[in-house]
Amino acid sequence: MKNLARSKIVIAGLGLIGGSLARALSRAGLSANLAAVDRDAAALRQALDEGVIAEFAEDMRAPCASADLVVLALPVLSIEAALAELKPILNENTVITDVASVKHEVVAAARRVFGEAPARFVPGHPIAGSERSGYGAARADLFAGRKSILTPLPHTDPQALALVRELWEICGAEVVQMPVEHHDEVLAATSHLPHLLAFALVDTLSQQGESEEIFRYAAGGFRDFTRIASSDPVMWRDIFLSNGTATVAVLDRFMHDLTQLRESLLNQDADALYGLCSRARESRGRFLEILQAAALKLPGE
Amino acid sequence: MKNLARSKIVIAGLGLIGGSLARALSRAGLSANLAAVDRDAAALRQALDEGVIAEFAEDMRAPCASADLVVLALPVLSIEAALAELKPILNENTVITDVASVKHEVVAAARRVFGEAPARFVPGHPIAGSERSGYGAARADLFAGRKSILTPLPHTDPQALALVRELWEICGAEVVQMPVEHHDEVLAATSHLPHLLAFALVDTLSQQGESEEIFRYAAGGFRDFTRIASSDPVMWRDIFLSNGTATVAVLDRFMHDLTQLRESLLNQDADALYGLCSRARESRGRFLEILQAAALKLPGE
Repeated sequence: MKNLARSKIVIAGLGLIGGSLARALSRAGLSANLAAVDRDAAALRQALDEGVIAEFAEDMRAPCASADLVVLALPVLSIEAALAELKPILNENTVITDVASVKHEVVAAARRVFGEAPARFVPGHPIAGSERSGYGAARADLFAGRKSILTPLPHTDPQALALVRELWEICGAEVVQMPVEHHDEVLAATSHLPHLLAFALVDTLSQQGESEEIFRYAAGGFRDFTRIASSDPVMWRDIFLSNGTATVAVLDRFMHDLTQLRESLLNQDADALYGLCSRARESRGRFLEILQAAALKLPGE
Repeated sequence: MKNLARSKIVIAGLGLIGGSLARALSRAGLSANLAAVDRDAAALRQALDEGVIAEFAEDMRAPCASADLVVLALPVLSIEAALAELKPILNENTVITDVASVKHEVVAAARRVFGEAPARFVPGHPIAGSERSGYGAARADLFAGRKSILTPLPHTDPQALALVRELWEICGAEVVQMPVEHHDEVLAATSHLPHLLAFALVDTLSQQGESEEIFRYAAGGFRDFTRIASSDPVMWRDIFLSNGTATVAVLDRFMHDLTQLRESLLNQDADALYGLCSRARESRGRFLEILQAAALKLPGE
């Protein structure tokens, strides 16, 4: 199998993640290897004009027929149709990966299309994002110092896995592997539930009669807390549809704790409320240490 | 009554808010008017050495006896003891204000101490903050472009109100007035509930067996969503203790909506989930427009 520098790489979906991947690979000197596919002709044209990619198409089939690596940078529930479109035209050496936030659904989609997930299919998920979406928000350093999780299956081809690992490492990410179901549970807790809560809070408040006034008196804390509620609705609809079970499991633990807190509020239980605030502050301190330790691993400019 | 430039101003509590107020007033040329009181001798010494204040004390009584304006920059539930300490030593012309996030509790404290809230007491709350606390986090521009809410009572002295208004306007804040109860309901929605949710989410996740691993795979969205969970625990215990009723009222609306969302997740209701995400994104866009419009009012450097 070719290594990354000799591979033709097709990025299907030139949004925030696909676009950032293209920019990162381009910065690593791989522009000549890159083709992009999107329905958004303006984004494709911009990437070509910027020298980020070498070619583009609005249809996956032509560039993918000669690809060594296809990256599906699409919403979770668009993966199945993309795999079905690729099935008749891919040659057997082509490696496929994706960037979706729910891995069991992507593996299930591959099984529905191919009977079994192909050995050259490496499910992946870079842990990076932004509330902004589209190629205009793409950044070459989006993955630098971040984790990229791969969830290979027992029969996944080790060479295919190595190629996808190289793809993310060249973007500055730290590649880690874990089982599909574990990924989906961890992401339900750290990403899917927080997004659900942010969307829900903004929606609850905006449906109050005086929502304009409420927003008028909100400050920076509210802005940060709700930042992720500005994320792409199609992407998040798909995530909530496909990781509902794991998200409900952690939501139920959270609502159980909230119900107890509600009692503490009504009973003016000073110890319980102080305990909550101080434990949470301490836990978040540990989280920041973990984030900073990861950032320290970043190569210098 | 003296105007602000001729007033001796005592700031009781040189933490994030009191310290930022001192820095803002100092930048406005009022350092010579400023005395600060705190138990933290190092913070007082630092403010004096920086030329931010002209004098300090570790006890309120001496500086407040000759003060024209006393600003109680203390946690909500410390206000009553401070008022009781001030009662025997204040002269009748001294204006008192505070910065606490729950106004009905502060007014009730004034009533308990004085029989009725004094006419020269102007309850106030600058809508600004940070998850960082203490004088070290204080910034002269913390209030610039922000709202500062005053909740005068029907018998509040108009001259006292004008002096406190001048205090915040000189810091660059836009002063608005509203009734006490309305303030507490609005803040429950925009600040107290979001803080409760952030504290609760971090606490729920940190009590899972694999919390270290969960935090390891969290990214920037989680960091922003939980930023406010690093806020001062004593201050927030006091807020939750004193604004529990209004916070529970909006928490109940939120939990009602969350329970419906839980059903949408379990039923894989694509329309409901897309509706949630797109409505929330749109509402947050309106909120950002309001924030930006306020920022545009800022004076240029």
